[in-house]
Amino acid sequence: MKILILGMDGYIGWSLALSQLNFGNQVCGIDNYSRRKCVEEVGSWSAMPILPMSKRLEILRKKYGDKISFYEGNLVDSQFTNDIIKKFKPDAIVHLAEQPSAPYSMIDQQHCLYTQNNNVTGTLNVVYAMRKHAPKAHLVKLGTMGEYGYGNDIDITEGFMEIEFRGKKALIPYPKMAGSWYHWTKVHDSNNIMFACKLWNLTSTDIMQGIVYGTRTDEISHDALHTRFDFDEVFGTVINRFCAQAVIDHPLTVYGKGRQTRGFLALEDSIQCLSILINNPPQVGEYRVVNQFDEQYNVRELAEHVKNVGNKKGLDLEIESIENPRVEKEEHYYKADHEKLKQLGFKATRHIDDQISMMLDDLVQYKDRILAKKDAIVQVVKWNDGIKQSVVNPTIPRKN
Amino acid sequence: MKILILGMDGYIGWSLALSQLNFGNQVCGIDNYSRRKCVEEVGSWSAMPILPMSKRLEILRKKYGDKISFYEGNLVDSQFTNDIIKKFKPDAIVHLAEQPSAPYSMIDQQHCLYTQNNNVTGTLNVVYAMRKHAPKAHLVKLGTMGEYGYGNDIDITEGFMEIEFRGKKALIPYPKMAGSWYHWTKVHDSNNIMFACKLWNLTSTDIMQGIVYGTRTDEISHDALHTRFDFDEVFGTVINRFCAQAVIDHPLTVYGKGRQTRGFLALEDSIQCLSILINNPPQVGEYRVVNQFDEQYNVRELAEHVKNVGNKKGLDLEIESIENPRVEKEEHYYKADHEKLKQLGFKATRHIDDQISMMLDDLVQYKDRILAKKDAIVQVVKWNDGIKQSVVNPTIPRKN
Repeated sequence: MKILILGMDGYIGWSLALSQLNFGNQVCGIDNYSRRKCVEEVGSWSAMPILPMSKRLEILRKKYGDKISFYEGNLVDSQFTNDIIKKFKPDAIVHLAEQPSAPYSMIDQQHCLYTQNNNVTGTLNVVYAMRKHAPKAHLVKLGTMGEYGYGNDIDITEGFMEIEFRGKKALIPYPKMAGSWYHWTKVHDSNNIMFACKLWNLTSTDIMQGIVYGTRTDEISHDALHTRFDFDEVFGTVINRFCAQAVIDHPLTVYGKGRQTRGFLALEDSIQCLSILINNPPQVGEYRVVNQFDEQYNVRELAEHVKNVGNKKGLDLEIESIENPRVEKEEHYYKADHEKLKQLGFKATRHIDDQISMMLDDLVQYKDRILAKKDAIVQVVKWNDGIKQSVVNPTIPRKN
Repeated sequence: MKILILGMDGYIGWSLALSQLNFGNQVCGIDNYSRRKCVEEVGSWSAMPILPMSKRLEILRKKYGDKISFYEGNLVDSQFTNDIIKKFKPDAIVHLAEQPSAPYSMIDQQHCLYTQNNNVTGTLNVVYAMRKHAPKAHLVKLGTMGEYGYGNDIDITEGFMEIEFRGKKALIPYPKMAGSWYHWTKVHDSNNIMFACKLWNLTSTDIMQGIVYGTRTDEISHDALHTRFDFDEVFGTVINRFCAQAVIDHPLTVYGKGRQTRGFLALEDSIQCLSILINNPPQVGEYRVVNQFDEQYNVRELAEHVKNVGNKKGLDLEIESIENPRVEKEEHYYKADHEKLKQLGFKATRHIDDQISMMLDDLVQYKDRILAKKDAIVQVVKWNDGIKQSVVNPTIPRKN
């Protein structure tokens, strides 16, 4: 199979590329390195150093020859997106090439607009290019459980729900109530993709993914193959950030009451799910939505897990509640279906405590790099008020 | 009151400006004349000639003095949007400044992207500027009944609906299933505005408006004050287009079976509704949705109305079914609530047949101008396949 990975330089993109190459598939990647630039902009870097793409490719080519190819470019550039899809003729397009941070989108107006344009225009260019040059390809698009929001009083279904209203039955899209400008871009994308499937008979799986954690997958056999690992407040997700805090003896910072409940998934299992979806496309013309996560936890429970595992390793960890910078419910009903991937064969292979243990072992080797960017862990983007402009370095261009 | 009208050069914007000035309000308008340019791009013009804005303003200033002001500019330009709202400090902002045509957004990729960026970025700039400089203003935003779509098997509510699901009750946003890239931009806008209200306590009324028809309002007392009237296939809406076809003895072209049902509203009554909403803002921080239309008809019924009224005037009219260029259901369930405006005092003042009669009388005086752009009535943008490139003149810049 020919797999086009949009955003191959990223946390999931790089891990997926290694996995797909191991399966014997032909992989083409694209990236504009915006993640590296944005993380630098907010004053941080990957805990584990990652090689420039040219070096990454050198290593891959030794093992996989011309099964791997890569192009630097931006999906917002219609011509580029068109050319790549025309040239590679993928069987599956895995679209991970979006600005992925809610706090980043909340910094200020400029960052909101950047996120909206980058994500929505990029995705529109992908569906237009598919229609022209790969109408039978399967678009595997990364969305987020955050599209549904966390203020729902009812169970969350996988994309659609059957209701009865005023005596009539209907199958309706599950209502989306996102909680950041970033999350809304994912909703806009979902809507646009659903429409493109209806309009042009394109085929897509829209993944509502939970929060991914972990430092590695099985394929990352030596340091030079590491995927990036962000721990700053803007790009680091919650378990990853707690583990980085743990290895530098920083309190584990919980927002508010910490009763916010989310679905979680180990990186290895996220890659497993993506592979299952690639190998099991929906019907031609179908817009399929799957909820992709393993277990639910609230944020305080996660902090307790990291604390307990850390304690066993001799780390003396504290949990600290800090003012919640977000506009969100800190306690809420949360019950989300996630059956479709199980029906396709997904079995979680990682236990959260084992994974945290491995993460702490991995990260302690890079303690100095985390300490060097310690300020980036505690700076906080306020949903109501952005970030102090001085923290963000405006000299790094984020232009498309 | 100080009323900022975004899109004052347009069909509704101009009519609303005249009405608000008559009420004694202070009116500031902005426009980038994109409507004039886009209609020219698709090979048409307004049936009734409209004056350049400088001349329009001259006339208004004679009567209203400095109660009227105007700035040329583009909402996509954050600085411009910010400056206007900072300077004028409006009590209400009526946002009509969007690319308003579904077919236009379906011409090709470039027109899709233009519509997405123009509408979504423009609206984001408006809410950011409000937050900074007019946080207590009331944003009256023009959406469309088309946001809900026409494939629903259940009644359409006004924005939100109470459901029971798996034994739990919830108030959810009514599911949106738009049918064109343009309609989806309106959905994206609605979502972004709903979020802005939650985030910053802004106040907004989001209007799901039906299709507006008519050549004039009471305020248009002489020819120099005419609002624009589009009759081409891309910008002309259905009753307006039928009336233009009638006066040049062109068959009334119905798409497919013509059983597509929509809500309709006379221009005079649309302006009445807008005035009511301006005078009756929702609670501070509320995101209010109203469905704004008077009566429901299907397309074939409308053609029959135009035919019957035309017959009485001696016009010999035919109704012709042409291949439906859209991807839509031609027969569907349609029942939409529209109570909120009535509760605020709205009473329809126009009967459809009287209105059609007046339109035919108005338009027959401009028969030559309609005939001169006859080709623009029959060219058809196909939802699946865009428009023949040659029809659209790419030399007219639509850049933001």
